Amino acid sequence: MILEVAVLDVIPDHVDRFEEDFEKAQSKIASMKGYRSHRLSRCMEVPYRYLLLVEWDRLEDHTEGFRKSEAYQEWKELLHHHYDPFPDVEHYDGIRSLSSVS
Amino acid sequence: MILEVAVLDVIPDHVDRFEEDFEKAQSKIASMKGYRSHRLSRCMEVPYRYLLLVEWDRLEDHTEGFRKSEAYQEWKELLHHHYDPFPDVEHYDGIRSLSSVS
Repeated sequence: MILEVAVLDVIPDHVDRFEEDFEKAQSKIASMKGYRSHRLSRCMEVPYRYLLLVEWDRLEDHTEGFRKSEAYQEWKELLHHHYDPFPDVEHYDGIRSLSSVS
Repeated sequence: MILEVAVLDVIPDHVDRFEEDFEKAQSKIASMKGYRSHRLSRCMEVPYRYLLLVEWDRLEDHTEGFRKSEAYQEWKELLHHHYDPFPDVEHYDGIRSLSSVS
């Protein structure tokens, strides 16, 4: 399992519209092959900052499968104009994971 | 639920020792009141970069409960000398979460 990580700095005036557009956009990513889950969270220290975490089966499910899809064009149109600066996206591989709930 | 997020840039020569020390350190955080889960992942694009995600019941469980505890002193001694630069830590609040697995 691969974790896609993007810190999204949204133009402060766009915050409400970004959240509405994300609501529409999330079905685009959730329908892709290799998609497992995603989570959008809002920063408590910087109120126009969001964290997007997406779990994929394999790196290529994101970098090839999603980014070269028609769904990605719709995702871009809905979301990319809300960001400043345009975010870096990184991928992480699991090492350690623990939970208090067994 | 609050998500603590830290991007950890480890001194490249320290990567192996950092992973060993994290293995020891994780019991310190996992024993705290309000701790729910944590995950340490390694960046695929920048091999000395790690992402630490910790789920807490409340912000104060991290900022007060953990950071003012004796366990945090041990955590610091095990881990902080491996970082350069010293990481920013942010907290995120859930907005949207979906999964392909119902």
